Amino acid sequence: MHLVCLDLEGVLLPEFWIAVAERTGIPELRRTTRDEPDYDVLMRSRLDILDKHSLTLPAIHEAIRDLEPLPGAVEFTQWLMGRAPLIILSDTFTQFAGPLMAKLGNPTMFCHDLEISEKGRILNYRLRQQDQKRKAVEAFKSLNYKVIAAGDSYNDLSMLRAADSAVLFRPTAAFAAANADLPVASTHAELKAAIEARLA
Amino acid sequence: MHLVCLDLEGVLLPEFWIAVAERTGIPELRRTTRDEPDYDVLMRSRLDILDKHSLTLPAIHEAIRDLEPLPGAVEFTQWLMGRAPLIILSDTFTQFAGPLMAKLGNPTMFCHDLEISEKGRILNYRLRQQDQKRKAVEAFKSLNYKVIAAGDSYNDLSMLRAADSAVLFRPTAAFAAANADLPVASTHAELKAAIEARLA
Repeated sequence: MHLVCLDLEGVLLPEFWIAVAERTGIPELRRTTRDEPDYDVLMRSRLDILDKHSLTLPAIHEAIRDLEPLPGAVEFTQWLMGRAPLIILSDTFTQFAGPLMAKLGNPTMFCHDLEISEKGRILNYRLRQQDQKRKAVEAFKSLNYKVIAAGDSYNDLSMLRAADSAVLFRPTAAFAAANADLPVASTHAELKAAIEARLA
Repeated sequence: MHLVCLDLEGVLLPEFWIAVAERTGIPELRRTTRDEPDYDVLMRSRLDILDKHSLTLPAIHEAIRDLEPLPGAVEFTQWLMGRAPLIILSDTFTQFAGPLMAKLGNPTMFCHDLEISEKGRILNYRLRQQDQKRKAVEAFKSLNYKVIAAGDSYNDLSMLRAADSAVLFRPTAAFAAANADLPVASTHAELKAAIEARLA
């Protein structure tokens, strides 16, 4: 029996921090793990920037309220939820993704969470565990599932490599070149076909 | 962070085999684990009965086509899918539950599957693993989730006992008495309140 693990941002939803940067007009928030590979340093700098601009959780929700899933992602997710057990594995935070997940039909997601003050200030972030994507895949394999995984970026690599089969979705040229043994899907229709072939 | 595990039949959907027995007019299919505690003996006798009556998978789908989730279960499931990661843990089979799961919004389900011939004959059943409900709860705990579980019957017991907190949903008097330390919910509104209190 098969189970599918998908990354969220870049696969079903737009990149969250880039959207917040655009909508708040704070370009420093565009920095990603490609600019600052130490995730802890990056997240602390993001929280400092939010604090400096007095951006609370409700203000962020307001900024991303009209954000939409990637074109084709809603239909793709609906198809997949009816086709196989699906778990979204994301390094985002429950409180950020919540409003957008509803637009996808609320697939089950494993991620992290934020510590929020009563006034909505983001006090800290809490990783549920280190390398959670790989550990989740290994847990599903211990439950006798064959795991099919798809993702687009470096934080997906250990998940993709732990899975029984893996597909890259719209990777950067460098990421695709570094993982040239993995097939690439450029559209949700291609990703659907790749998953369907592995489920059959 | 919390994750919720729910049993399926008796909690969100009607008991599948009882519905098949009623709709096909084959009363022997009403037998459950209460009549025959050996699950393997029970399932083999069920498959023999289906075979004797030439009941293929499409015929079973036809028989249960107009079956509906329990009253209140759709709204409850929609609420829960938006509230926390939800995994349905069921000892049913993918091929039986599929059509009804769509009516619940296709929450992620871990269960078993059937071996089906090209003509739709049910050749065999395949348990994904023994005691899968307990093993799934333990896997989620290893991923640093606090697990809240709800179920109604004996095959839920190891899941309920492995979870961080547990609620019985409409248990028989005997099952409730044997687990008198666990709270009981009699309606989906009560189950929602019990889960909400544990998530808070």
